[in-house]
Amino acid sequence: MGETGTVAIVGVGLIGGSIGRTIREREPGTRVVGIGRSASRLAEAVDHGAIDCGTTDLAEGVADARVVVVCTPVTEIAHTVRQVAAFGPREKLITDAGSTKRRIVEEIEADTTASDLFVGAHPIAGSHRQGVAFANPRLFEGRVCVLTPTPSTSASALEIARSFWSGLGCRLIEMDPKHHDQTLALTSHLPHVVAAALAASVPTTALDLAAGAYRDVTRVAAADGALWSAIFRENQPPLLDAIEQFERELSRLKSALVAADDDAIQTWWNIGRARREEFEERQEKPPVKD
Amino acid sequence: MGETGTVAIVGVGLIGGSIGRTIREREPGTRVVGIGRSASRLAEAVDHGAIDCGTTDLAEGVADARVVVVCTPVTEIAHTVRQVAAFGPREKLITDAGSTKRRIVEEIEADTTASDLFVGAHPIAGSHRQGVAFANPRLFEGRVCVLTPTPSTSASALEIARSFWSGLGCRLIEMDPKHHDQTLALTSHLPHVVAAALAASVPTTALDLAAGAYRDVTRVAAADGALWSAIFRENQPPLLDAIEQFERELSRLKSALVAADDDAIQTWWNIGRARREEFEERQEKPPVKD
Repeated sequence: MGETGTVAIVGVGLIGGSIGRTIREREPGTRVVGIGRSASRLAEAVDHGAIDCGTTDLAEGVADARVVVVCTPVTEIAHTVRQVAAFGPREKLITDAGSTKRRIVEEIEADTTASDLFVGAHPIAGSHRQGVAFANPRLFEGRVCVLTPTPSTSASALEIARSFWSGLGCRLIEMDPKHHDQTLALTSHLPHVVAAALAASVPTTALDLAAGAYRDVTRVAAADGALWSAIFRENQPPLLDAIEQFERELSRLKSALVAADDDAIQTWWNIGRARREEFEERQEKPPVKD
Repeated sequence: MGETGTVAIVGVGLIGGSIGRTIREREPGTRVVGIGRSASRLAEAVDHGAIDCGTTDLAEGVADARVVVVCTPVTEIAHTVRQVAAFGPREKLITDAGSTKRRIVEEIEADTTASDLFVGAHPIAGSHRQGVAFANPRLFEGRVCVLTPTPSTSASALEIARSFWSGLGCRLIEMDPKHHDQTLALTSHLPHVVAAALAASVPTTALDLAAGAYRDVTRVAAADGALWSAIFRENQPPLLDAIEQFERELSRLKSALVAADDDAIQTWWNIGRARREEFEERQEKPPVKD
């Protein structure tokens, strides 16, 4: 983040607010401007220490910013980035924090001004809790942030993006937007689908007999519906593929159950168990920084 | 537990060990005998304070017991209960802690001696961790224990069972074995299936981009394969129904995704979200004791 005098954050919720708090803690000299639709929520963000000041006027908010981070819902990111690129006279980088990338990057790269300044990003950190009140200056510490440069990405914008996101504490991984979306469909969007489908499958009358397994599996079903339905829509083709992959796993178990084949049931279980163990091991020994 | 001089526990793992530790803490005058296949594991159970003494001889272990709790894997419970009933001269109650009930109860009730002494039970508490080392004298505190009496159940055995399980700190719910199995297929067995299927659906190469949602949904996939495949097998028909209910929920989302119907996607999400909220509210305000 070294050279950025002013950073503007468009959308100061959990993610935008956590970015603001992290910058203000790590770089007290940097001025953080928040941009949002609601003046009262911007005032709340100031109270929570997420931004130095806020404005509902996008042009005014980005006027002095060298880095602009767009943290709006995924359906609004591309449009907002293009507006910001048209407004901002001093910008060196526009980046985002959206959970999906392919369609967003394509739409931005169709606009040369925006394309020259933009590097897509997805910090893989979050919470099922919403809003700046839950913003956390440690949210990104050691977490992966995926950058999605393409052949159209400017080398200098990419350099600033690497410095910006690693300055927040993230470990960087770079991949193309399509690969990002396919991977996240499996690692994040599918778990959310499965959590909500399970929650919907268990009738209220049965809930007194639900315990730890139900609680863990359905936890993320408490997340915001507008946010997640937008992510599902944006990432529809990879998400449908991921759901079908999951359905094939269910079918394999069903066949083993119908055949009353104990070995096949246990073999099926142990594949998932081994994968889960692999995940645990990787969490304990995070990969070397990129 | 008031009148029980000796309690015998067959199978001293996480659940059996936690029962032992709870009794020894709450009723220091009661003698707790552990019965298992491995003398070294029984010695470990003594070291962990789960039992006063242990034996690998079932007949010897239950000889002085007024209450016998069978905590073996579900596939062995009915056979063990029938053996115990044949051996034990002083028994007033044989109960179990199995996660499934219908087939077990049927098999036991086919034997008059066993049937007169038996009350099926399922304390809904556990962990994906195995073994007496994780036994916990608070495991049952405030947790539901389902008792599954039938028209064949002896009234005096049922009274002792109520006293025994509520003495461990459980809240009691009574229902017939079939209803228990249908409910648990949804609230416990299906979440385990879904966790393992999700874990198996995400390839190792994608795991660096997995975070909180993946971690929560797959947590119980770390549980023991032999234990869970036995439960799935025992409860096959209700589990297949539960999986199909879940598949219908997935299909509803897929239709909404294919139709690109934002309202339908969000409506779908919000059904699961509301169910999850209902669960949270009930956890905060547990129902009145039965």
